[in-house]
Amino acid sequence: MNFEALLSSRTRLMTANAIREILKVVSKPGVVSLAGGIPSPESFPMDIMRELTDRVLTKYSSRAFQYDLTEGFIPLREQISLLLESRGITATTENVNITSGSQGILDAVAKLLISKGDKIALEAPTYLGALSAFNPYEPLYIRMDMDDEGLVPESLEETLKTNKIKFIYLVPTFQNPTGRTITLERRIRIASIIKRYNALLVEDDPYSALRYKGEDIPAIKTMAPDNVIYISTLSKIFAPGLRIGFYVAPEFLSQWLVLVKQGVDLHTSTFNQALAAEYLKGKYLDSHLPEIISLYRPRQSAMLSAIKEKLPGEFACSPSDGGMFLWVTGPCGFDMIKLYHKAIENNVAFVPGKFFFTNENEGIETMRLNYTMADEKTIAAAMGKIARAIDSL
Amino acid sequence: MNFEALLSSRTRLMTANAIREILKVVSKPGVVSLAGGIPSPESFPMDIMRELTDRVLTKYSSRAFQYDLTEGFIPLREQISLLLESRGITATTENVNITSGSQGILDAVAKLLISKGDKIALEAPTYLGALSAFNPYEPLYIRMDMDDEGLVPESLEETLKTNKIKFIYLVPTFQNPTGRTITLERRIRIASIIKRYNALLVEDDPYSALRYKGEDIPAIKTMAPDNVIYISTLSKIFAPGLRIGFYVAPEFLSQWLVLVKQGVDLHTSTFNQALAAEYLKGKYLDSHLPEIISLYRPRQSAMLSAIKEKLPGEFACSPSDGGMFLWVTGPCGFDMIKLYHKAIENNVAFVPGKFFFTNENEGIETMRLNYTMADEKTIAAAMGKIARAIDSL
Repeated sequence: MNFEALLSSRTRLMTANAIREILKVVSKPGVVSLAGGIPSPESFPMDIMRELTDRVLTKYSSRAFQYDLTEGFIPLREQISLLLESRGITATTENVNITSGSQGILDAVAKLLISKGDKIALEAPTYLGALSAFNPYEPLYIRMDMDDEGLVPESLEETLKTNKIKFIYLVPTFQNPTGRTITLERRIRIASIIKRYNALLVEDDPYSALRYKGEDIPAIKTMAPDNVIYISTLSKIFAPGLRIGFYVAPEFLSQWLVLVKQGVDLHTSTFNQALAAEYLKGKYLDSHLPEIISLYRPRQSAMLSAIKEKLPGEFACSPSDGGMFLWVTGPCGFDMIKLYHKAIENNVAFVPGKFFFTNENEGIETMRLNYTMADEKTIAAAMGKIARAIDSL
Repeated sequence: MNFEALLSSRTRLMTANAIREILKVVSKPGVVSLAGGIPSPESFPMDIMRELTDRVLTKYSSRAFQYDLTEGFIPLREQISLLLESRGITATTENVNITSGSQGILDAVAKLLISKGDKIALEAPTYLGALSAFNPYEPLYIRMDMDDEGLVPESLEETLKTNKIKFIYLVPTFQNPTGRTITLERRIRIASIIKRYNALLVEDDPYSALRYKGEDIPAIKTMAPDNVIYISTLSKIFAPGLRIGFYVAPEFLSQWLVLVKQGVDLHTSTFNQALAAEYLKGKYLDSHLPEIISLYRPRQSAMLSAIKEKLPGEFACSPSDGGMFLWVTGPCGFDMIKLYHKAIENNVAFVPGKFFFTNENEGIETMRLNYTMADEKTIAAAMGKIARAIDSL
């Protein structure tokens, strides 16, 4: 059969996976990967997992294995409502919805809102998983400027003034890929702008709990609640393999998003939601989160030191107080793809930054470095190899 | 904000939820529901769940909580490959893909293949969950005739001859909503027709393991492997709340479907896949499936008897050897919506059959009865109430 002829028109937008090709070599034995975007398995609370599963089996029994509400398992929504309160976000149990990872809500938002050709405003660079959720619905992307203080508010305003934007997508805190955080002062201005323009913001916040220094900055959701779909996840503070994301959206959109999700997966795993509910209800997060931070903080320090000490002076790192990534910009015109191939020869991998930009020729001299998956010593050694690869070019 | 103005063009197709409205009363206290479509919690292997969770924690530890392949957790794919072998379907571990329930693959197939206005051929009546997966991609539906022996092959051939069909969607065994099964003779003809027309069949098989009498009939996939995406699930033979579906598709489509799924949920819960892998690897299904069948067989018998003994002679039931549903057709023009409201007054619910048809005025005199959620005595009493409601009309 000629299956190619059967593909839908949207499918062609799903082919841009050059990054997959380039990262294939990462799994070569002996390669130290600073390319990943995943939490360390040491960060999972394995010491209490048996206690949690036992508790769920005893407390919920077959209910944890039955079909459940598309909106989410009520005991988990109650707990997430409390978690959000600690982040300054007001949401009742009914306001909280659970999805299969935050990928699930990114897909639902795109499916609900994007007609072909609709314009989505994005930070440049932006999170690739969001693009893979949005692409199949055939949007156009409008890039907005960012610097070390995050999204530039003037660029947002200019974008809203000159375009009809369906929604804005931001990762304001410890952004993937840059590790950057939008400052409080800018958040206040951004909130004011989206209210003034009646714009919808999709605020993706997977990393804010992973803060290694400085003080928490409130989500934009707290400043413009009626204009923001706030998205977060338990992947970085519990376990990613359980696929638990959550969101709080304006009521009208919430109802639609539930209907969308029903067609996609009916609901998120009841058992996993019950595990997450017991994790939060038992206050395990309170004691476990400091452990995760103690694991990652020295890794981030080690990488920051290595960048400063080992890379040539023209390689600058964006400041970052948390999350999983650091972002390095080389001298103007420096080709990180070339460096990537050189580094791979020396058994070190990272992600060339150009893949995180929607414009073809942007970000050629940038790179994303992950520090959650390797220990300090390994990070220092790997960065030494990258430095030598730079020298050899 | 005017959120309504933000909705995409596809969204309007998601509004057809009259069935939701009508079923809202079902959760009224005291109502016996024959309206559901869910397995009995008594059918879950709760006696071994602690053993399974313990085993997964010991065997896989943090690996069961980490991100995993979009294609699925390899130990589960190995086991599903063996399960499929027992159904006569040849698939290597690599050929098997895991999704978040079979809803997940229905969504992925639709997203991959349906452009607006594409024609999908369906049995009339058909499975509602498939429609809720397909609708957002804006297809047109072509209805095909079925009778007590399942899809009428001549109707399929006529449909393929006169339309450009993107794919055919069938539930050949113990169909939802009718409980009907396509006979072996017809399957052979259907396989021959789809090969002759180079047509793609999406064969959805959630129920075939739940056979209460008669002999297994091979899937159409076994007769036309290159033309069929075969879909199944562990929801009816393990636990639906774990959301484990699986499929085997022609290689070209498989690769695309994985890319589609990546944008929707990255992957299905690793922990739940590990539980399912241990359930199958430990051969628990072999001993547990007969228990599920022993639970449901007398319930089906009780309902068949009650239909025969209590309903007026003009109410005919489609023969069914398994699954979860029976399908009753009243005398021509009999309005099952009216009966529904009358039955609800007497605290019994069912689903009027018209909701399972894509054509507006079809199936007015039909009803779907579920027998998995109530015991024999309750079923008999509920059917008595329906009989009295019929008398009173």
